[in-house]
Amino acid sequence: MSSAEAKAARRTKFEGVFEKIRDELISHFAGEGMPAEAVEWYRNNLNYNVPGGKLNRGMSVVDTVEILKGRALTDDEYFKAAVLGWCVELLQAYFLVADDMMDASITRRGQPCWYRVSEVGMIAINDSFMLEAAIYRLLKVHFRSQTYYADLLDVFHETTYQTEMGQLVDLITAPEDKVDLSKFSLERHRLIVIYKTAYYSFYLPVACAMLVSHIPESYTVPTSPPSTVRPYDLALSILLPLGEYFQIQDDFLDFSGTPEQIGKIGTDIVDNKCSWVVNTAIKLATPAQRAILDENYGRKDAEKEKKIKALFEELNIRGVYAEYEERVVGTLNKQIDEIVEVEGGLKREVFRSFLGKIYKRSK
Amino acid sequence: MSSAEAKAARRTKFEGVFEKIRDELISHFAGEGMPAEAVEWYRNNLNYNVPGGKLNRGMSVVDTVEILKGRALTDDEYFKAAVLGWCVELLQAYFLVADDMMDASITRRGQPCWYRVSEVGMIAINDSFMLEAAIYRLLKVHFRSQTYYADLLDVFHETTYQTEMGQLVDLITAPEDKVDLSKFSLERHRLIVIYKTAYYSFYLPVACAMLVSHIPESYTVPTSPPSTVRPYDLALSILLPLGEYFQIQDDFLDFSGTPEQIGKIGTDIVDNKCSWVVNTAIKLATPAQRAILDENYGRKDAEKEKKIKALFEELNIRGVYAEYEERVVGTLNKQIDEIVEVEGGLKREVFRSFLGKIYKRSK
Repeated sequence: MSSAEAKAARRTKFEGVFEKIRDELISHFAGEGMPAEAVEWYRNNLNYNVPGGKLNRGMSVVDTVEILKGRALTDDEYFKAAVLGWCVELLQAYFLVADDMMDASITRRGQPCWYRVSEVGMIAINDSFMLEAAIYRLLKVHFRSQTYYADLLDVFHETTYQTEMGQLVDLITAPEDKVDLSKFSLERHRLIVIYKTAYYSFYLPVACAMLVSHIPESYTVPTSPPSTVRPYDLALSILLPLGEYFQIQDDFLDFSGTPEQIGKIGTDIVDNKCSWVVNTAIKLATPAQRAILDENYGRKDAEKEKKIKALFEELNIRGVYAEYEERVVGTLNKQIDEIVEVEGGLKREVFRSFLGKIYKRSK
Repeated sequence: MSSAEAKAARRTKFEGVFEKIRDELISHFAGEGMPAEAVEWYRNNLNYNVPGGKLNRGMSVVDTVEILKGRALTDDEYFKAAVLGWCVELLQAYFLVADDMMDASITRRGQPCWYRVSEVGMIAINDSFMLEAAIYRLLKVHFRSQTYYADLLDVFHETTYQTEMGQLVDLITAPEDKVDLSKFSLERHRLIVIYKTAYYSFYLPVACAMLVSHIPESYTVPTSPPSTVRPYDLALSILLPLGEYFQIQDDFLDFSGTPEQIGKIGTDIVDNKCSWVVNTAIKLATPAQRAILDENYGRKDAEKEKKIKALFEELNIRGVYAEYEERVVGTLNKQIDEIVEVEGGLKREVFRSFLGKIYKRSK
């Protein structure tokens, strides 16, 4: 089997678990006496909004459990890890259905946004709520008897709250219809990215994998003198900057990537996005360049977009990004190297694997 | 102190706890490094949407704990019960902010709906999410070390899901702009009411009070022979029909109450609401009367509304309601009488107290 075939098989296996849990959710819902029309609606909500993305977040739970255990998983272990992976995907679906409404987006994953499907409209708000509620239904059914059940609920709750905090800051910093670059800064960008993306995309899957692998809250490592590791904090200290790097790269690709590369046309400039690119430009701009930014950023106007792109080139954003990437990857590798591995504890490979998937990606 | 004064003092004390937990939520949020503008936004969200209602649901947690303990509460016991009460109110605020968007409502509690406040708009979706997230933040801070912590989380999750199920069925049964009475029935009404209202308004506050009072999952009562009681199931078996009765009364008052009585003008008829009144009319109508219903219900037209009201009188809805009320109150009283009280178990007064507040209320 080629590496591409192996990757496709991995995805197919993971998608198979979605079918199971979707049917489980639907059966329970129907079993509560809900009318056929509502059952159909809920099924469509789940099918339309949950699978169909890249599934990186969800599958990373399974990958991480495999790395932590250092062996292939039993069927039951695989299933449990995959259920948690789908809970992460359900959380993302909850956010995306709502984000698309708040951003008045048109399409998502190559299809109309859910709220734009005829008959759905504002009911999409309640549908997003039900995607979130499905998480806790699944966790109860599959993890209620586990010692780490309350920890699992806590990490989902906290991550949800953090993501919503980040979304709020993003919404009031960069409303699509009111450009005010005085609100932008690299510090503000960092806050938004950490809260809105890094916690749920990077920390949450790893924390789920660690809990299901019974990684304890703290353990001792044989340094001299021996020291105490708090593995969840350690994971956070690597995964938040890693998540920030991922999003900065995403922002950079929106500007620099060709449509063939990234599979879409970048719209961050016309959409007034609080992107790493514009924030870096703001930091480097002379007063005259800043005036160009103020006058042209965030406007639905191809000429103005061109002027912004030219300014980004003039400011050598490509060079600044390349430097940033080398620096952050160096720091991350150093942090990863410093992890002391013990039986039943964290493993360097967990983080290496994430970094390997991100470094120099072009889509 | 008069009974009205005592009631006002009770409310003021409960509202005092809101100030505390709001400040606690805001401090934590600011402590996460959120910008001042976002802190201000979150404070406004909490102040605008959480207090200001009747607070019956929230205060019923405190009342129920007092009844279960059979004595005045210590300051700490009061505070814990009130935090749970505010969690119920936060859950309701989460639903109402979203419901108002889905129903395109104009006002709520005498002020514009949150999404209609200038600057808010669709951000109200994320604001509703944050109201829900606040619940789990409060539960973690105040209840993490309790043995019943996971049970508390479970009951909030399950109730949330049930309410969303009910909301979905309501939304697809009675869309405001598309009248189709063939979807209506008393059975459908019952399902909607139980799921959308009864679980969160009646069962949730009592279940919270029972958990914080350490009422066990089951206990034995000295009947002959002794029998096992599952008190949470027992509470549910009374509180769901009680919640149904409450909503049927609400539906009836929307039709029969004068604006002086109910503090608003009833709009269920023009809004195409799946109300007990229209469902009862559907059940009793001759084919000719059904035609009148089909042609006139759910239209924004004062003449058509008048025709519907006349038909409701013709069908003696008032008499049918009076009969229903006597019957259901009789059944509930019988159920309550049958409760066998033991030390540390459920008490009849919990349910009597609810019933006393509802029976023959006129607002």
